[in-house]
Amino acid sequence: MDKYRVPNDEFYMKIALRLAKKGLGFVNPNPPVGAVIVKYGNIIGKGYHSRFGALHAEREALLDAKKRGFDVSGATMYVTLEPCDHYGKTPPCTDAIIESGIKRVVISARDPNPVSGDGIKKLMKNGIEVMVGVLENEAKEIAKFFFKYVTTDLPYVTLKYASTLDGKIADKIGNSKWITQELRREVHKLRDIHKAILVGAETVLKDNPMLNVRLPKRKFKNPDVVVLDENGRILKKVISDIDKFELFNPDYHRRVIIFSSNQYQNVELPGNVKVKTPASLSVENILKELAKEGIDSVLIEGGASVFSQFLPYADEIYGFYATKIFGKGKSIFEHLDVPVKESEIPFEIQKVKIAKNRKELMVVMRRCSQELFNTYAKDTLMVRG
Amino acid sequence: MDKYRVPNDEFYMKIALRLAKKGLGFVNPNPPVGAVIVKYGNIIGKGYHSRFGALHAEREALLDAKKRGFDVSGATMYVTLEPCDHYGKTPPCTDAIIESGIKRVVISARDPNPVSGDGIKKLMKNGIEVMVGVLENEAKEIAKFFFKYVTTDLPYVTLKYASTLDGKIADKIGNSKWITQELRREVHKLRDIHKAILVGAETVLKDNPMLNVRLPKRKFKNPDVVVLDENGRILKKVISDIDKFELFNPDYHRRVIIFSSNQYQNVELPGNVKVKTPASLSVENILKELAKEGIDSVLIEGGASVFSQFLPYADEIYGFYATKIFGKGKSIFEHLDVPVKESEIPFEIQKVKIAKNRKELMVVMRRCSQELFNTYAKDTLMVRG
Repeated sequence: MDKYRVPNDEFYMKIALRLAKKGLGFVNPNPPVGAVIVKYGNIIGKGYHSRFGALHAEREALLDAKKRGFDVSGATMYVTLEPCDHYGKTPPCTDAIIESGIKRVVISARDPNPVSGDGIKKLMKNGIEVMVGVLENEAKEIAKFFFKYVTTDLPYVTLKYASTLDGKIADKIGNSKWITQELRREVHKLRDIHKAILVGAETVLKDNPMLNVRLPKRKFKNPDVVVLDENGRILKKVISDIDKFELFNPDYHRRVIIFSSNQYQNVELPGNVKVKTPASLSVENILKELAKEGIDSVLIEGGASVFSQFLPYADEIYGFYATKIFGKGKSIFEHLDVPVKESEIPFEIQKVKIAKNRKELMVVMRRCSQELFNTYAKDTLMVRG
Repeated sequence: MDKYRVPNDEFYMKIALRLAKKGLGFVNPNPPVGAVIVKYGNIIGKGYHSRFGALHAEREALLDAKKRGFDVSGATMYVTLEPCDHYGKTPPCTDAIIESGIKRVVISARDPNPVSGDGIKKLMKNGIEVMVGVLENEAKEIAKFFFKYVTTDLPYVTLKYASTLDGKIADKIGNSKWITQELRREVHKLRDIHKAILVGAETVLKDNPMLNVRLPKRKFKNPDVVVLDENGRILKKVISDIDKFELFNPDYHRRVIIFSSNQYQNVELPGNVKVKTPASLSVENILKELAKEGIDSVLIEGGASVFSQFLPYADEIYGFYATKIFGKGKSIFEHLDVPVKESEIPFEIQKVKIAKNRKELMVVMRRCSQELFNTYAKDTLMVRG
């Protein structure tokens, strides 16, 4: 790209990207999008998609400019994703842009969703100058859940484990709470941006986890919780003990989806709880069912059986390691059995973070190849919570 | 320290420290030391302790200045460790400095070895200006093996493991070769600076490892190899198969020390092999025996049983993790059994290095407290290779 022209575009796009991020965790399964309107070098309007069903970033930015008394005709709009050209929850953004008199639109990434229509074509047909690809990778990164979801009809899968240096997620008698503490905030940040958290029934019964988001200075919002309860162990217990389950705590205001092989018609459940009994409880089918529920991203939080089964489908892995050692104990992926020659997983280390107290480490790994694993993905088991 | 005076001292001391490093792995159990002589701001002599038994850094630097035709009278000497004041393999360095006419000596760290005498006092008594503590931590870091060795009569213990993300050092059937490859160079650098490598008999019998240093552009030198062979499994095999053991390969020109509970008098061993049968084969006693052999530093390379037993005595841990997963398989410390509450080890993460291919990670941890571990160090087992 032209060195003497692009810097300005990148400058404004960075601001649009920062705005987009504000929607993370609130807009799913829509993409987070940010937009900035610039005239004579001044920012006269800013906007972002703030929650599912709300105005798109482009319309927010136009509205902002209007409120502040600016005339946007002749201005440039920077937007992190190609404007939509279809009627969804809101009318097409392309129409709003064309009507506004904006003369130039700079776009980070093309919209991969065929439903959205060809926004770029529409804008160009209407005499607007369009530039595409400024900070494209950054925009795709921010909207990675959306990109996976609309192109595959599967949610983005992030697997998160907390283990000792020797790869144990629980000691020999099964205790596991607070293996990592200092980096808990990173875990809550992960929960905050995902549409759902997924755990096995064993984890719910053993640890009774809250599975909510605990972050300071953040709007109240919790992800959905998905529980794999093939044999209905939780559903059976619920009859007598529902108040003892943090899972069903109404204060968290969230959806709970339970996968089971039996409807348990006699169990009375709160309105926010849904039991799903699909024909197959394979990992792939569960992911498809989640996508149908509008879940574009799911954070797999354990335990070992769930980790072992979802690993082949993970897009990203967050490994939290504490300077602790159990020796004997429960291994992260103890249900797998891979010989050394086939043990390489198609992931690259992206980032490492050492906790301030230097006693914990976060290792972020990203899928680097679309192939599943050599052996053990072939005959993925039925999910057992 | 005085801001307007120190920069020069630190500048020259850094050069002395860089020289000291050249001796790493060659001078044990002596400390690596570097020295620089400066007159009117010019470096007129440089020297370092290059191998055990050779001249000390101070004498090397004086000799260098002389060879180059410089008169050192009135000059300043920068030396990374307090000059010795006793007759060892070489006469006292203090005498050489005093005779030379040097007027000022800048020292990084005091010599912790009581045997060395009070070099600082001797220099001052002879009218030399002495300054101590410039880049002291850096000097202690370079000579960390020496500091541990002379103050405790035990070698510095570095524990190094290579594992999968899930803490496995071998798959279910025991295969383990090449878990990490990209970072092998770091392993060889570790071997290069340690006086000895220690492994269990199981590792020798299973993997037949070379345990030598394979580094480009490096003088040929291999560390001693220490093998824990309590039940004489290797010694019994040696009778028929000695040529098959890389351990006894004469090309490596190294000492081999075997700890066993039996002398196996009938076994004929090469001259470089020594069998030790101390009354106790506890970890502590083995470390003491190694110190007696002049071993100031030992790199513990496995397997699981050895790791489990030496962990409480480790000063440093190098964990190499590959983006691989075994699931079932051999855990790093599988002979330990620690409950979650007592599982924190007194180590801090010092440094993390990601391999260029992003498929491997090195985690360097340093002991941050002198206490052993809570439970499992108390009843340390006898060593079983």
